[in-house]
Amino acid sequence: MTRFKITVEYDGAGFVGWQRQDNGLGVQQALEIAITAFCGESATVFGAGRTDSGVHALAQVAHFELEKKFTAYQVCEALNYHLKGQRVSVLQAQVADADFHARFSATGRSYTYRIINRRGPLALDLGRAWRQKGDIDTAAMHEAAQVLIGKHDFTTFRATNCQADSPVKTLSLLNVQRHGDGITVAAQARSFLHHQVRNLVGTLMLVGRRKWGPDDVKTALDA
Amino acid sequence: MTRFKITVEYDGAGFVGWQRQDNGLGVQQALEIAITAFCGESATVFGAGRTDSGVHALAQVAHFELEKKFTAYQVCEALNYHLKGQRVSVLQAQVADADFHARFSATGRSYTYRIINRRGPLALDLGRAWRQKGDIDTAAMHEAAQVLIGKHDFTTFRATNCQADSPVKTLSLLNVQRHGDGITVAAQARSFLHHQVRNLVGTLMLVGRRKWGPDDVKTALDA
Repeated sequence: MTRFKITVEYDGAGFVGWQRQDNGLGVQQALEIAITAFCGESATVFGAGRTDSGVHALAQVAHFELEKKFTAYQVCEALNYHLKGQRVSVLQAQVADADFHARFSATGRSYTYRIINRRGPLALDLGRAWRQKGDIDTAAMHEAAQVLIGKHDFTTFRATNCQADSPVKTLSLLNVQRHGDGITVAAQARSFLHHQVRNLVGTLMLVGRRKWGPDDVKTALDA
Repeated sequence: MTRFKITVEYDGAGFVGWQRQDNGLGVQQALEIAITAFCGESATVFGAGRTDSGVHALAQVAHFELEKKFTAYQVCEALNYHLKGQRVSVLQAQVADADFHARFSATGRSYTYRIINRRGPLALDLGRAWRQKGDIDTAAMHEAAQVLIGKHDFTTFRATNCQADSPVKTLSLLNVQRHGDGITVAAQARSFLHHQVRNLVGTLMLVGRRKWGPDDVKTALDA
């Protein structure tokens, strides 16, 4: 068996998310179908993170094993050939050690959440950003974000159906930056809880709207 | 009659281009339909430039006239309401002087042409960029681009069906920049010929591929 590590880009709009589900096509499944089409093998693809429906990936890392012998180059080209017409692209394939695991070997995950602060609807960035009209204080958002940095129990910010063993996570970066009418929230951690990023952004938006101060964020975190 | 100037963003993928045509919906027509839906008037919308099918706009300026009295705010909100479900957004509306003309009052036009220099297909930027594999010398492209700056007869670079009176145009900026695997070609001029930008980019790509040198670009321009 050869283990392959792949780096995948996808547009989450056409998928039910990363994971295989009953109600539509997952990115994982699209890759598995492409693997079977390419070499006839039924491999399971393991991803570094499970993204939700509508969440895009610039570089999702995944791995799988094949019995037949192929070079990484052959795997990359063949997968892209069989993914044609789908918004998934294999950017890179590498042969990995047998103990490499996309999920467990990952040392960090980075998310970028984009907000466009304007009145007009999004024609170009529809499905790529969250439109928010009116005044948003991004400096206050960034300041409040720093309260969340470090190791905390993020129970307040996890989804009710989150399957993580522990709600304790270490947030290493949470930056809020404005460039014109664009606001990006960049988050980095070794791992995240389900919906943690979007819940963090929702909370920071309360600060941006001046409904909450940094103390309220601290209180929510401690709750 | 009140003349309104609007600034419009659109995703060109779903349109036959800016202009009204028989083979599908033009952005101009989508706006005219929205105007009629909003106030019952049949206005003609004049754009600053006619973009082709698949060309997107960050800020296309247009104008039209209405008989009934509306504020610019009302026009903006109503158009966006009636454009719902279409990838067109009115970013701004202003009351304009009676002699303002989106096309003839324009003092400049700016285009950005995006290239992604990588092997993997485009999942996120499909329809937003041109994928080019292999080695591209962007420094050589930028150098050759400077040969084209200024007032020239751009006959070589115009479409066969170009309707412009004169092939003489003044290119004020043609910059090629690389950021990682992204290459942007930024072009600015008072006005452009039909397909001029894409033909300029195609020519610069010959330089990027080291098939042409700056002298060949000069020869093509002089031809």
